[in-house]
Parts: sequence; structure tokens; C-alpha cells
Amino acid sequence: MARASVREQIVDAAYEQFHRHGYNAAGVKLITDSAGVPKGSFYNHFESKEALALVVMERYGRTRHVEELTDEEVTPLARLRNHFELLAKDIVEFGYERGCVYGNFSNETADHIPAIRTALIEALNFWTGAVATAIRAAQEAGEVTSTQDADVVARFLTNAWEGAIVGERAAKDGSSFAAFFTVAFEVVLR
Amino acid sequence: MARASVREQIVDAAYEQFHRHGYNAAGVKLITDSAGVPKGSFYNHFESKEALALVVMERYGRTRHVEELTDEEVTPLARLRNHFELLAKDIVEFGYERGCVYGNFSNETADHIPAIRTALIEALNFWTGAVATAIRAAQEAGEVTSTQDADVVARFLTNAWEGAIVGERAAKDGSSFAAFFTVAFEVVLR
Repeated sequence: MARASVREQIVDAAYEQFHRHGYNAAGVKLITDSAGVPKGSFYNHFESKEALALVVMERYGRTRHVEELTDEEVTPLARLRNHFELLAKDIVEFGYERGCVYGNFSNETADHIPAIRTALIEALNFWTGAVATAIRAAQEAGEVTSTQDADVVARFLTNAWEGAIVGERAAKDGSSFAAFFTVAFEVVLR
Repeated sequence: MARASVREQIVDAAYEQFHRHGYNAAGVKLITDSAGVPKGSFYNHFESKEALALVVMERYGRTRHVEELTDEEVTPLARLRNHFELLAKDIVEFGYERGCVYGNFSNETADHIPAIRTALIEALNFWTGAVATAIRAAQEAGEVTSTQDADVVARFLTNAWEGAIVGERAAKDGSSFAAFFTVAFEVVLR
């Protein structure tokens, strides 16, 4: 059981460090130091930092509040709002000091680590697809009267969310998230 | 003159590397190697990598096609479209392998390098302000009928652009830029 526990400690620490510092700044030594395990133990559990990054991405995917997008208890438009509000809350609670693992990895690694790029494309498509399904339902319910292709609007909005995080990591004043909610819900999803 | 030339070579190389790899992956050694100058020469010209990053940001700011936003030869809406089309062109031409220096630095450094964060806030505000001025002119000219606050719409759009880059660095297929132009110009700036 000791091995499983060290592995978990490494994944927990990497989740935190990739979130906060991105891929390149979070080296194996920083990760094992913050996990409180010897650096040498890393390669007993992971072939490479890249392999660990893929495990972290999978875990991160489960914290993205995608389930809100299919919550039949509320209207499709409310699902969309709840989804993005919960994503915002996670970042505001950490004082805008955590970005999105997807955004960090896309900028830092997609060009030169094919396995991470493939996982990123899949993760962003899964998220965007779930947003598109909710937009389509909102259009069918008459909550959204725009007839724009739901897939295109979803791609635009998930990217706009990633960009709002870029804005907030610099300003940390809520202005980019506020602009996102105003324009997304009063203009784009009208 | 030799010193000035080495300095320029370092700035050129850093401009390329920060663009391509971001802040953390572009170490002083990578920068001096790609500049073809000895690593030791770096500190004759720059106090720190941070100081060099500020010089690069300033140069990058002059390549952002902000002058398109005040081009009185065309209508305000055409100015906005030309501006974003030129930004897109710069990235498409490099096969989506260059990101935005602002986006890279915001995710990677804003939390822990105050001087870069300050410069980023200033640069993003300058850009967003120029976009807002063009949106306001488009509203006044009746090209844009939405009465949303131009500053809020501008903040939303500049962030959405940064996010479209995040999407393209992963997918590299044009879908995120296409979604940006469709929704920005057919829905947001309608």
C-alpha cells in the first residue's frame, strides 16, 4: 500500500503545481518536494513527467463541472450559467492564482509533446461538445433565439472562458469574468 | 557597436523563444544559444531574464496591429475586423506554433513576477482600450446596434481572442479562429 500512497501524493502535488505554475515551471523535483517524497521515488511510479501530466489531466477533467451541463433539474440556459459560475468560483477562491490546466498545457506543451496535445484536443472537444449540447437544448427550448450553429458558439465560448482566465491571472480584479458573463449571457446566448 | 549588436541578438532570440515556448521554457541558456552568443554575455546587457522579458513585451506591443484600430480610411467595424485578421495571420503563418506573448506570460508569470504582471496589465488595458474606442465608434456610426458598454465588450473580445489562441495551439486546424470571427462579428458586434 505504501507504493500506492506515494503515487497518490505525487499526483496530488502535480495537480496543484501544474494548476498553479503550468507545465514547465513544475519540474519533477518541485513536484516530489511538494509531495514530501524523495525525488528518486518518482520514476518508480511514472515513466516521465509527461506520463504524470496525462494522469493529472484526466483527474482535472473530472473537476470541470461538466455534470452541471446535463442537470435536467434546471433549464438549459441555467445549466450553462451554473457551469461557468462554478468554473469561476474555483478560480476566484484561489485568488486567481490557479489557471486552467488545459490552457496552461496548450500554450506550453502542445507544440512539442504529441501525447499531451492529443489528450488536450480530446478534453477540449469533450467539454465543448457538452456546452454545445446545452446550447442546442436552449435553442430548442426557445431560451436562446440566436440560430447560430451551437457547435461554433460552444467553441467560441469555451475559448472565451480560457481567455477570461488569461485576463484574470494578470488583473485579478474580476473584470474579465464579469465581462464574460455579461457578453456571453446577454449578447451571445440571447 | 559590438555590445549593441549582441544586445539586439539577445532581444531577437528572446522575442522568438518567449513567443514560441513561453517564459519558463525559454531559459537564459536557450536564449543565448539561439542568439549565437556566449551565455556569459547575457548579464553584460540585462540584469535578469525578467528585465529582458520587459524589453521583449515592449517590442511585442509594437507588432500587435493596434494602428489598424485607428485607420480612418475604413469604417470602425472594418478596422476591428482588419485588426483581428492581422493578428490571426501572424499565428497561422507560423503554423499555430507561436502563441501570444501576453497570454504566455499571464499564465506563467503574473502570479509571482510583479514587474511582468504590471507590464501585462498595462499592455492588455492599452489593447483593450483601443478595441473599445473602435467599438464605440462603430456604435456611434450605427454599424453596431448593440448598446452594451464598449469597454465590457472590448474586454470580452480581447480575452476571447487570447482563448482562441489557446484552442488553436492545441487543435491547429483553424476552427477556433473561425468560431471567433463568426461569433464576434455576426453576434457580438452586430
